[in-house]
Order: sequence, then C-alpha cells, then structure tokens
Amino acid sequence: MSPAPAARDGGFYEDLTVSQETLLELVDLGRLSPTGGNKQPLKFIISWEKEKNELIYPTLAWAGYLTDWAGPEAGERPAAYIIILEDKDINMNVPKIDFGIAAQSIMLGAAEKGLGGCMIYMVQRQKLREVLHIPEKYEILMVLALGQPKEEVVVDEIENEADIKYWRDNNRVHHVPKRKLKDVVLEL
Amino acid sequence: MSPAPAARDGGFYEDLTVSQETLLELVDLGRLSPTGGNKQPLKFIISWEKEKNELIYPTLAWAGYLTDWAGPEAGERPAAYIIILEDKDINMNVPKIDFGIAAQSIMLGAAEKGLGGCMIYMVQRQKLREVLHIPEKYEILMVLALGQPKEEVVVDEIENEADIKYWRDNNRVHHVPKRKLKDVVLEL
Repeated sequence: MSPAPAARDGGFYEDLTVSQETLLELVDLGRLSPTGGNKQPLKFIISWEKEKNELIYPTLAWAGYLTDWAGPEAGERPAAYIIILEDKDINMNVPKIDFGIAAQSIMLGAAEKGLGGCMIYMVQRQKLREVLHIPEKYEILMVLALGQPKEEVVVDEIENEADIKYWRDNNRVHHVPKRKLKDVVLEL
Repeated sequence: MSPAPAARDGGFYEDLTVSQETLLELVDLGRLSPTGGNKQPLKFIISWEKEKNELIYPTLAWAGYLTDWAGPEAGERPAAYIIILEDKDINMNVPKIDFGIAAQSIMLGAAEKGLGGCMIYMVQRQKLREVLHIPEKYEILMVLALGQPKEEVVVDEIENEADIKYWRDNNRVHHVPKRKLKDVVLEL
C-alpha cells in the first residue's frame, strides 16, 4: 500500500481499498486495549466490501461545522468502516469509557499504516441496525471511517477563547484549531 | 532514562522519577487527540513531586480483582500522575467519550518512552478535589498513574466464556485474560 498523493479536495481515495486483513489487525489493537474491570464488552463489525460500505455510508453525519458540505461525494467516500458495539450481555459497572480508548488505538494504528479516518458518533443508529441486521443485544457506540486520505489536515494553535470550529480554506486544507498546551494544564 | 530492569513484584520503581517535561509531552498528546465537536473540554493536572504524589496516592483504588493486594507499597508507587478533568464551562453535546481517547494517547506515548501505567477510574473524587484544591468547575474524570514498571504483564488468550479477572502468578507476573479476535468480530 503506497501513500496517497497529496490532494486538497476532502474525503478519501475510495478506490484505494483497505483489506480485510488490515481491518482485522486494527480491530486487534482495539481488542488489546484496556477496558474497565477488564470486562471487554466491545464487539466490532468490519466492512471493506463496496456493497456493505454503501449501506453504512448514508447512516453517518459528516463534519457538522462545515454547513456547505454534505459529506464526501461518491468516489471520495471511506473505503472501509469499523463499527464499535457494546455487548449488553456483559454487565458493566463503569461508564462507557472503553470505546474511546479502543477507538484511539485503532485510529493511531491506522495512521501508522498510512490511513486516515474519522471517529463518527453522529450515527442514525436504528437505520444502521436495520441495514446490517445488528441484533438488539449489541448497542451501537461509534463508527470509524477509514481510507487513504485525500485531504490535508493542519492543527492551528489558538488563543483560549477563540472559536474552536474546524474550517476549510480556499485550497481545501482542513484546519483544526486547538488550544495551547499552557491553556490546558492547570497550575494549582 | 534507561529501561528499568526486569522484576516481578508489582508496582513501579518509585525512585525513578518522571520529569515535568516528560509529563507535558504526554499531556500534549492528550491535547492533540480528537474531541467531540472539537470542543476540547479536557484539562490536565500533572504531578511528579513527591509531596504532591503522596496527596494523590491515597485517593486511588487499585486492582479490584486482586483482593489480597491493597496496592503498591511505599517505594513501589507511581512516580507521576496525570489527572484528567472536564471543564464544565465548555458545553458538550455528546457523552463523555473524549477522556478515554486522550487517556489512550497518553498511555501509548508513555509506553513509547519506556514507562508503564494504569488508567484509574475508581477515585475518591471529593477527597482528591480537597487535597489538590481543584475548583468545582472541573469535573474529575480519571487519574493516570505512571512510572517505570516493576511488574511483568502478559496477555493470555481465553475462551469466550472464561473468567476475565486478571491475576498474579507465583512469580508475580500479572496476567490479563483477553478474548480472542475471532470472538470479538461479528460476522453478520
């Protein structure tokens, strides 16, 4: 898998597929991540097949702050997905921390493989459940969208009270404003 | 910082301190981690000073399944802590996913630096707030305990219905049972 050429129009190279093997390697990072009380309540659904991807895509909301952008066009959509579920048969006594931990393990592993992605929480869960026939015993927590990124992303340091909305410039570079380190460490 | 010698009696090399600079590098990984709507509600308190560490330690619960072990003894306690807070002045419209994501970024960064640690959710929050004078506007989410690990940890693959409780063997090796990859990936 060679790195995607630099481009500046958002989304992914949908034709550059992600293999089942790669997705399983990524899920394995989630599997090995810590969970509260080691209960391991998380289950995963992977999708790399075009038909299954097309069922998942319409259930996802994209980049809420980019109001002039409905999401990536056909041909620029994610090449793969990992859906994170909680198995409700496994009794948890702590809040739902685990899936954020697992999601970050997976996304960092994806970055190491040259992939990019989004953690998507704004999901039409009932619709997704129906199209994939996900049993009720699994709660849908989050969807990770993956692919070869077609978009350049930069982090801009901002003043503490400045606007945190991400935005795209005229060259279609995606800017993510982040507060400075000194503003997130408390001196007590 | 050289790697700690292998040893098998739990806890950390408390005398091998973790520098303020290292902790700030780790917090920076948390700062750069994704947050819902990019709202960045997380703030961090770091501790590497002996006196401050001794205030934090008694507010933490250790390894609930190891009922014959009250936690690391003096001299084997964490050399540093990162406390993750949520700034309640920052209005969030999604559940608390962010701190698990940031915590995992920090722990993986720590591992890359040769450190080990625990994510501790079982915290006496009111006590911790009092000893460190944490203002009410910050909700205490989690404490990350860090240090040079004195303990060997192994992952054991288990059958789907087997007991997930971690345990220590006679050589003080800490065993973490994990379900197999095939048992956490759903075939739909």
